[in-house]
Amino acid sequence: MAVESFELTVEALRARRCTKWNKFPETVIPAWVADMDFAVAEPIQQSIMELVKHRDYGYGARTGEVSLEQAFADRMKECFGWEPDPELVQPTSELIQSVYSAIAAFSEPGDGIVIQTPIYPPFLVALDQLNRRLVDNKLRDDGHRFVLDAEGLRRSIDADTKMLLVVNPHNPSGRAYERAELQALGDVAVEHDLVIVADEIHADLVFGERRHIPIATLSPEVAARTITITSATKSFNIPGLRCSVMHFGSPELRARFHTRFPERMMGQVNVIGIDATVAAWRHGQPWLDDVMARLAQNRDRLAQFVKAEMPGVRHYAPEATYLAWLDCRALDLPSSPFEFFLDEACVGLNDGADFGIHGIGHVRLNFATSAPILDEVLNRMAHALEVRAR
Amino acid sequence: MAVESFELTVEALRARRCTKWNKFPETVIPAWVADMDFAVAEPIQQSIMELVKHRDYGYGARTGEVSLEQAFADRMKECFGWEPDPELVQPTSELIQSVYSAIAAFSEPGDGIVIQTPIYPPFLVALDQLNRRLVDNKLRDDGHRFVLDAEGLRRSIDADTKMLLVVNPHNPSGRAYERAELQALGDVAVEHDLVIVADEIHADLVFGERRHIPIATLSPEVAARTITITSATKSFNIPGLRCSVMHFGSPELRARFHTRFPERMMGQVNVIGIDATVAAWRHGQPWLDDVMARLAQNRDRLAQFVKAEMPGVRHYAPEATYLAWLDCRALDLPSSPFEFFLDEACVGLNDGADFGIHGIGHVRLNFATSAPILDEVLNRMAHALEVRAR
Repeated sequence: MAVESFELTVEALRARRCTKWNKFPETVIPAWVADMDFAVAEPIQQSIMELVKHRDYGYGARTGEVSLEQAFADRMKECFGWEPDPELVQPTSELIQSVYSAIAAFSEPGDGIVIQTPIYPPFLVALDQLNRRLVDNKLRDDGHRFVLDAEGLRRSIDADTKMLLVVNPHNPSGRAYERAELQALGDVAVEHDLVIVADEIHADLVFGERRHIPIATLSPEVAARTITITSATKSFNIPGLRCSVMHFGSPELRARFHTRFPERMMGQVNVIGIDATVAAWRHGQPWLDDVMARLAQNRDRLAQFVKAEMPGVRHYAPEATYLAWLDCRALDLPSSPFEFFLDEACVGLNDGADFGIHGIGHVRLNFATSAPILDEVLNRMAHALEVRAR
Repeated sequence: MAVESFELTVEALRARRCTKWNKFPETVIPAWVADMDFAVAEPIQQSIMELVKHRDYGYGARTGEVSLEQAFADRMKECFGWEPDPELVQPTSELIQSVYSAIAAFSEPGDGIVIQTPIYPPFLVALDQLNRRLVDNKLRDDGHRFVLDAEGLRRSIDADTKMLLVVNPHNPSGRAYERAELQALGDVAVEHDLVIVADEIHADLVFGERRHIPIATLSPEVAARTITITSATKSFNIPGLRCSVMHFGSPELRARFHTRFPERMMGQVNVIGIDATVAAWRHGQPWLDDVMARLAQNRDRLAQFVKAEMPGVRHYAPEATYLAWLDCRALDLPSSPFEFFLDEACVGLNDGADFGIHGIGHVRLNFATSAPILDEVLNRMAHALEVRAR
């Protein structure tokens, strides 16, 4: 499939009923929520059209090869050399449901949960709503990139710290952690008997030669305490279809979870979401290869542009994800950078403040779009900064 | 729309990937799980095709008129004169998820939960898995139909009884409770400070002039303690799309629920399920009118047939639902009636034993199918009984 065929025009995007293109007025170009401006892969579309053709919306029979669980296990083995057990999979509608329920199942109110911050906002909301304590393991800026601070982590853990909530690849920094960093995390988890929740939804979106390392592959000790949560919805751009998985690294972990959350308390996944996910995982890679080529171009273009045209903005090109994290604190803007770019550039970004206190003064930019739309976004932002600097 | 147009042939049904037509070997005609052998309404199909045309599978923007919450409120007002508050709606993937979470939120392990038995099996499994106690309020057979036993209910409640789990219209008996019966239930709930969970998923499927009475309309006192759970999936035949609602009768009830189950712990509903449900509730009634005409014919045909051709089988024609509850205890069969009809008649029914101890010796028959298929089911069953009687 040619690159041109999956990139959508502004007109096509506005004809949709998605949140991304409907949150802001039409004068604004959206570059916020993690939805790509690309049409889904043909195998996904075909799997959906097959159901639609037969109006096949009854209780679905999906076992063996066509089951979500088996497709997940096969995909993990093929991509990452990891062999999860299909029997230890709990389907969920989306990762936030998985995060909330894992927190509730494996910790008590008042307990500490480690998070590498800044972080995807719903995790912070989950801690607040469930009355858990944030054990703040801020990513360290080493001058070249953000890195995991294992020493800081060790110091911050106390007796009531029960879980480690790891997002790898990390959102919003775009870091794809190296084995040594993950090993340090795993060691701490084993030392302090922490349950690990590993959000690996961006695993497919690692650039270049690097490959994502599932935390559950580090060692049997780490695997046995790890709940891996993932979905095809991010890399294959079907978030509205709501289909994800939790994988428990041991039968014991799964049994503990089900004591608090029996399987049917988690709801059930719709047949279209299941079939689309299975099609994505089994047949979507050629499409994803094309998408990754576009994303890599956009990533490089953005990094060069920020360096050349946005003086004062700090940015490390992400190793993974289609999200750029822009540190605008040195700009000394009259309002938050989110408000500034929305009001002065008509560009709709994510406000870094939503990612925790270390995100204040930052914005997150979604570059999963066509080159012309990305150029327009960047030019608008640079122009607004230029006008202000005059 | 002519009746013929929504009734599917055996060939079309077998071409699908639904559980109903895939559980048993091809020699068996299935008449079990509550899935209808009818093609969905055109407005539902159109709403899905609109999404498919645009490959519009991103995070969905669904507010106001096109929201699930507003469509639910409007439908309840139009059909039942009930005005639920869209602000007090929690979407869920399906009713079992709602039941599990309501039980966990409003009772503790060991507490008693009242259920009118025999009952839809997952409710009994939920009580078992969550370690709640069944307060068994068996329906009373008055010789003409099953009736609510309010006196028995009063006697069985103790200090640790916390909830009343009402299914109305009732599954499997097909009773659509009258106002006096519901009022008695409501009075008991108020007297004993019970939370009511009202499964009203069969509300659209009441036969004749009768109209479903939502429990939440009985009185403000009853409404304030009632969680109504429902979905368009049953009456509009889209269970695989997974979309349902919980409605809390008061902000206090909702707040209590969300303390234990924050909104995002419940997951999110997929956009296809939402759009299909909104289309069903807003534009599906003409199709449902046709379906109800077919179901009424089938109901009467079945009752006459059982009386004439299946001596020893007790059956009250249901007032609602497309489910027939057949008492086969007097037949003195060598195995359960489920096994007997599966083995000797090649008809796949639901085993009454799954509906609790009072369901032993019964089967549940789903008559939501075309007249020829229903006739084949009934003839096979009668023939098997006849052979045995020789």
